Amino acid sequence: MSDFHLDERIVRDSDLLTKIGLCELRLMKDGRWPWLMLVPQRPDVSEIVDLTPLDQTMLTFETTLVAEALKKVTGAEKINVAALGNIVRQLHVHVIARSKGDPNWPGPVWGFGTAEPRSADETKALAAKILDALTP
Amino acid sequence: MSDFHLDERIVRDSDLLTKIGLCELRLMKDGRWPWLMLVPQRPDVSEIVDLTPLDQTMLTFETTLVAEALKKVTGAEKINVAALGNIVRQLHVHVIARSKGDPNWPGPVWGFGTAEPRSADETKALAAKILDALTP
Repeated sequence: MSDFHLDERIVRDSDLLTKIGLCELRLMKDGRWPWLMLVPQRPDVSEIVDLTPLDQTMLTFETTLVAEALKKVTGAEKINVAALGNIVRQLHVHVIARSKGDPNWPGPVWGFGTAEPRSADETKALAAKILDALTP
Repeated sequence: MSDFHLDERIVRDSDLLTKIGLCELRLMKDGRWPWLMLVPQRPDVSEIVDLTPLDQTMLTFETTLVAEALKKVTGAEKINVAALGNIVRQLHVHVIARSKGDPNWPGPVWGFGTAEPRSADETKALAAKILDALTP
């Protein structure tokens, strides 16, 4: 059994916010949407079904926890939750805050235009709000 | 409390395959991809977090069950799982079989071109295979 390590594209495209029970919680480096990502800290996992049933339940729990916090922070109209992995095979779950009039609304965020980085200050402020909303 | 009923766009765009414990399992009327949809039979639910914790766990269980069956039937490279709901707010989970070279690979299926209906025979054959793969 190999050790868990992050795909290099995930490292490049997102910042670590915190580690929850099962997952790393990461913030995508794209200011067009408040866009989080959960990465289960398990090696060699591509599909949700590759996780044990207990880990699957943990992933669901952590996804809804993060989705709720993101909705609270952003006031978004809809939270998009998705595990695609057509490009990066390591299992990762997108949790994205969407609102009317945002880039490509109501279409998907993937494959649309190019990322627009946030400033360090903006990143810090958003990260702080999300972490605060996650704290009971 | 209102009764559960399906959004009319879900009815129009997909065929009922079967009812699992929590969800209706439906097949999208789009022959470009093997594309299933799970709809929890609960009223007034838009986000996953609107479900009770038990229903959330059920949804995860049914999603992985269906994803496994779809992967078995299609031999797909990657299963895409997503709850978006930017257009249809009733909670529904997409489970889609994706493979290299399919329309818009490795991009998402949503918002790409227009649906290409299957023939009645093709629909019947695919539905039978999926239902067979779901039966232990």
